[in-house]
This record gives sequence, C-alpha cells and structure tokens, in this order.
Amino acid sequence: MNNLTVIKIGGNVIDNPDALTRFLTAFASLPGDTILIHGGGKIATQVAEKLGVQTTMVDGRRITDQAMLDVVTMVYGGLVNKQIVAKLQALDSNAIGLTGADANIILAEKRPVKEVDYGFVGDIVAVDSGRLQSFMRQELTPVIAPLTHDEMGNMLNTNADTMASAIAVDLSHHNAVTLVYCFEKKGVLSDPADDDSAIRELTPALYAEYKAAGVISKGMIPKLDNAFNALQNGVERVIICHADELAMAVQEGAGTTLRLATNQQES
Amino acid sequence: MNNLTVIKIGGNVIDNPDALTRFLTAFASLPGDTILIHGGGKIATQVAEKLGVQTTMVDGRRITDQAMLDVVTMVYGGLVNKQIVAKLQALDSNAIGLTGADANIILAEKRPVKEVDYGFVGDIVAVDSGRLQSFMRQELTPVIAPLTHDEMGNMLNTNADTMASAIAVDLSHHNAVTLVYCFEKKGVLSDPADDDSAIRELTPALYAEYKAAGVISKGMIPKLDNAFNALQNGVERVIICHADELAMAVQEGAGTTLRLATNQQES
Repeated sequence: MNNLTVIKIGGNVIDNPDALTRFLTAFASLPGDTILIHGGGKIATQVAEKLGVQTTMVDGRRITDQAMLDVVTMVYGGLVNKQIVAKLQALDSNAIGLTGADANIILAEKRPVKEVDYGFVGDIVAVDSGRLQSFMRQELTPVIAPLTHDEMGNMLNTNADTMASAIAVDLSHHNAVTLVYCFEKKGVLSDPADDDSAIRELTPALYAEYKAAGVISKGMIPKLDNAFNALQNGVERVIICHADELAMAVQEGAGTTLRLATNQQES
Repeated sequence: MNNLTVIKIGGNVIDNPDALTRFLTAFASLPGDTILIHGGGKIATQVAEKLGVQTTMVDGRRITDQAMLDVVTMVYGGLVNKQIVAKLQALDSNAIGLTGADANIILAEKRPVKEVDYGFVGDIVAVDSGRLQSFMRQELTPVIAPLTHDEMGNMLNTNADTMASAIAVDLSHHNAVTLVYCFEKKGVLSDPADDDSAIRELTPALYAEYKAAGVISKGMIPKLDNAFNALQNGVERVIICHADELAMAVQEGAGTTLRLATNQQES
C-alpha cells in the first residue's frame, strides 16, 4: 500500500506567520504523498467584525448565516488557502488549493436544524478520494480549506478536524494512511497546566480513564472522538502533535500517538 | 486540433446575481472544452472600504498594497471564485477553481516600479497550458481568478483580460482556440450612445479608424489591444459580446468578431 500522510493544521498556527512558515517548511519536506487540511484561525472573526458581521459560537462551533458564509468563503477559501499555496510553491511543493466544491472533491449537506440552527454548515456526504489520489499521482499536493458544497450551488462551512478525519478514512481504503493533527500543544497533555506532559500513546481505554478523571476535556474531546473514529475505520495511525514537531512526530519521536490497542497487546 | 473556448466574464456581470446565473447556465451548456476567467467586480472595492483599506486606481488599474492584496486574494480567490464553482457544480459542470499559484498554472513577476508603483501586481511570465489541458482531459472545467504568484511565496493581482489573452495564446499551440470577452455591452459599439450598434466584424484597419475617430476609447482600448495581440499569436477567433449572448456569439450570431483580415481578403 502507498504511504500517505493527511495533516490538519490548526488556526492558532495559521494566525502566527513565523509558526506557519516553520510548519510549511517541515510539511514540504515530508516523504511520500501528503494532503494538508487547514483551519481558519482568528482572521475570519477579525474580518467579520470589521465587516460588521457578528460571530456567534455554540459549543465552539461557528453559527454560519449568509453573511458569515461569505466571510469564511473569503477568508478560508481565499486568503488563508492561497497564502499557504503560494508559500508551498516557494518551497518547491506543487500545491493545489481546493475546497470541497472544486472538482467536487467533498460533497456535503446542510446540517438539519434541531436544537441549534447552525446555518450554512455542511455535514460530509462523500469524499472523492479517487480524484485526490489522481492529483497526487500528478505530483500535486492538495491543500484543502474547511469548506464544502451541497451540489445545489451553495458553499457550506465545515469543521476542519472532521474533514481531515473523513478524508483520511476514505483514502485508507487504498493507502496506508497516517493522520496528523498539528496544533500549538505538544500532544494530548496528562496535565493541562504542564506543556511538557504529552501522553506518548493513547488507547481508547486510557482515553476513557483520562476523560473520567477530567484530565481530557473541552475542545480535545471532539478532536479525539474524530481521531479514534478514523482509527476504527481504517486509518493506520493518528498523531496529535505540536506544529513545530511534525517531522519528529511522524517518526513517532514526539506528540501523542493514538492506537486502538497498546503495542504489547498487538504483538 | 481540439476545439477550446476561453471565456472571460467581467466584473459588472459578477456583481449581478441574476445575470451571473444566466451567464453560467449558458457557459455550462457550451460544447467542447472550456476555461472561464473571471474578473473581480465591485465587491473587492466594497469589502476594502468596509475593512478600511483605501482603493486607488491609476488609468483604471488598481494599486495593490499589502492590505489590498489581502482583499483581492479573499474576494477574487475566495468569494467570487468559489461562488462560481459551486454554481457550476449545481449545473453539472465539474468546475475546479484555480489561481495562478494553484498547481503553478500561471507564474508572474511583480511589475517593476517605473512612473507608477502598482504594488503587488503581477506581469505573466509563464502559463502551464499542459496542466490546464490535463485538467480538461480529466473532464474538469478550470475557473480561474485574476491572481498569480511569484514563486517566492507572494500572491500577485493580475488583470483578468490580460490573463485570458495569455492563457488563450498559450493553449493555441495545441488547440483551435476561441477567446470570448463577455461583458455588459452587446459588443464593440460603433456609437457608444447606442447599445444596439455593435460592430459585427472588426479588423486592425477598422479598429485604427474607429480609434482615430474617437469612437473606440478608454477601457475598450487595452481590451482590444489584448484581443488583437491574441489573434496575432495563434488564437483563431476573438469575440466580444454581451454575457447574455454567449451561446449565440460563439456561433457568430451576436457580438463583435475580431479578425486579422476580413473574410473576403482571406478567401
């Protein structure tokens, strides 16, 4: 099987030009096929504010009305995506910026309204992994913004963590996929107050223990649920690491590696 | 030779959602391979104003400082490009939105500072027509925003008319290319006050006469210079027409067709 690394880079790194350049330099040097999925960062909120568009968050998710959809389409699909693509081109990586609408690579449907009306938010229906593989065979590196479409003419705002997981799972049918979540911490911390307390290896059992003890909480829970879901559906490895430690983490020398069972149990 | 139609759609059509939908419906129904290049419209100026970024024009060209570059990257590369792509997907056209940076399809260099410092404006250095053809062989329809890059990590603002002409010329080495400029007039007018006075056929000799008489002036001159330049460099046909008359114009039943010589002289 072909080795493929799907990497999600978070908003806090995108907001910091020096950190982003360091990360992209490491990303461009990774061996094998790679796909980058980026978040949006605070820029969308800042642009929205200046444009007089109010930001409403429910449980960490952005409510996306028509005006906010225009803002995220501009900022994620335009500013952030193209800045990353231009920087990767300068690093000799032949990047191609995409949203789910481009070449119809990720089809979604507008989230049904239940307790909360999230607005123009997309739940992923289908990933065209054949098309993504074809781009990589053409020596292109997909750089994907957290936007999808509904095939009825509308763009939809989509969570980048979920998107990375869905892409990794779909590609795992024909590739040995490593999924890496890069952010501003050194991994999943066993002590949220200690930045150097990254858990080296996390299994579902250990995750349940940390959750019960309240050590893992808030934003890490949906991220880890996404990550374990990917492992259960065919992804070989999931790594959560600091953006500055990407190269080391892929070699399992940094960050938190998620496994369905410990190495001992496997052997 | 393969028949290929390169179409540029102007900003005034993009600013009008109904006109844009009519145009895209006609575009999606054209036979053969097609490439769409879009302008930016007034949205960039409106967004810039709200963001407190001042718009300065010299001879109809936008001065692009860093803040304005961010605005056009957002608006052209994000909002306008993705709205068009999503609408084309709904019309069963498998569109892929691109800037010059994506897959390195259009490399440019920052315009040297002479009398005017245009800022981050790109003059086209190379078009990768092989890549564009490869996308079309994969049944993708390129939708190109008027942005390029300098291979040093910077996006550059680039005039959409010039871009359409450069792409058409480069593709004409291996295709029979028709280049169509769609805008809000019915062609090149022999009487600027009469919207129904479109000149049916324009040769360089006739163009020179109209220019000398002051009938053709202002913004039409760089557009027509671009257009005749394309004809002199391998493009088979150039048509200038109303966005609502695209289908008819391609069959030479509407708009102004540019030729290097009249049909009579040719035969």
